[in-house]
Amino acid sequence: MNRRIALLLVAVAALAGVVASKAPAFGQGDADAAPIYGVKLPCGYRDWRMISVANVGEPVNDLRVKLGNDLAIKSYREGQPFPDGAIIARLAYRAVTSEENNKVFRAAAERQGVPPEQITKLLAGSFIAGPATNVQFMVKDSKKYASTGGWGFAQFTNGKPDGEAVHQTCFSCHAPAKDLDFVFTRYSP
Amino acid sequence: MNRRIALLLVAVAALAGVVASKAPAFGQGDADAAPIYGVKLPCGYRDWRMISVANVGEPVNDLRVKLGNDLAIKSYREGQPFPDGAIIARLAYRAVTSEENNKVFRAAAERQGVPPEQITKLLAGSFIAGPATNVQFMVKDSKKYASTGGWGFAQFTNGKPDGEAVHQTCFSCHAPAKDLDFVFTRYSP
Repeated sequence: MNRRIALLLVAVAALAGVVASKAPAFGQGDADAAPIYGVKLPCGYRDWRMISVANVGEPVNDLRVKLGNDLAIKSYREGQPFPDGAIIARLAYRAVTSEENNKVFRAAAERQGVPPEQITKLLAGSFIAGPATNVQFMVKDSKKYASTGGWGFAQFTNGKPDGEAVHQTCFSCHAPAKDLDFVFTRYSP
Repeated sequence: MNRRIALLLVAVAALAGVVASKAPAFGQGDADAAPIYGVKLPCGYRDWRMISVANVGEPVNDLRVKLGNDLAIKSYREGQPFPDGAIIARLAYRAVTSEENNKVFRAAAERQGVPPEQITKLLAGSFIAGPATNVQFMVKDSKKYASTGGWGFAQFTNGKPDGEAVHQTCFSCHAPAKDLDFVFTRYSP
């Protein structure tokens, strides 16, 4: 790339950063905040404790885990609704076949005398977590997010917030779970 | 049950406990320890951090998550092999359909104009974690478990160790993963 163009891009990026940092928290947010709700990527979420696991079928075809910060986990274990400050994270990974695992499953199933057609079905339905797809968050703040059940929503891909269109879909999907404080996921023992 | 038989059973169980408590660690173990390796249910494993997620197809039909104690997580992040004291837990849950989730997925997919046959496929392949099936552990102790790659293995169902037959199958399945310190699961970001 031409050096002057590169410098120009750096300058534009820096300017965008300045403008964004002056935007209201509940608006477009700054460069690191997700649109609409202004949620930033929470620090250390990868170290949070596990709430439960799930998967979504084709064409989404993922394996997903829900993690919670300390307030969320405490609330799950002691009783909802969630207090302000509770955050639930949904990490998702492309579901991929592991030839290495399937070789071992096949050998174990054969030793147990499982019929070949059942082994084929077992292996075809077995997946491990591949590359991460995106990470979603629900952040409880009953005042700031009063109009959306007390929750702010965010989705990040490769550490960057996704666009406004994605974020406009969050609350309408969660609204049917009103009786459970808008959270679908139950805690797994 | 006849009261005398019941008392006899209690006495036998108590006696078995006394005998077992004098058994060597690498033997039948006591009532709380899994056979062969003598691994007990580690305290607080449900609070450990997440390594990765996976699922196994029918007829097992589960959703599973791997958690690691601090030594295991540190080793995954900084480089294997695992040090003595590292423990990896595999929690598994029956994969069940959530009518509640599927209703929301269907509505969202319909809004996006996804064809009905694709929606049917999406919902048929979407599961959440149902009842726990069992919990497995790999405990690293390079001296105690020298003959099985430095790992002791254990499986618990409803908090109780499973039988010897199950534990005889652990190492033979993990042996092919020798180049990865006998661990199949990779760390997910």
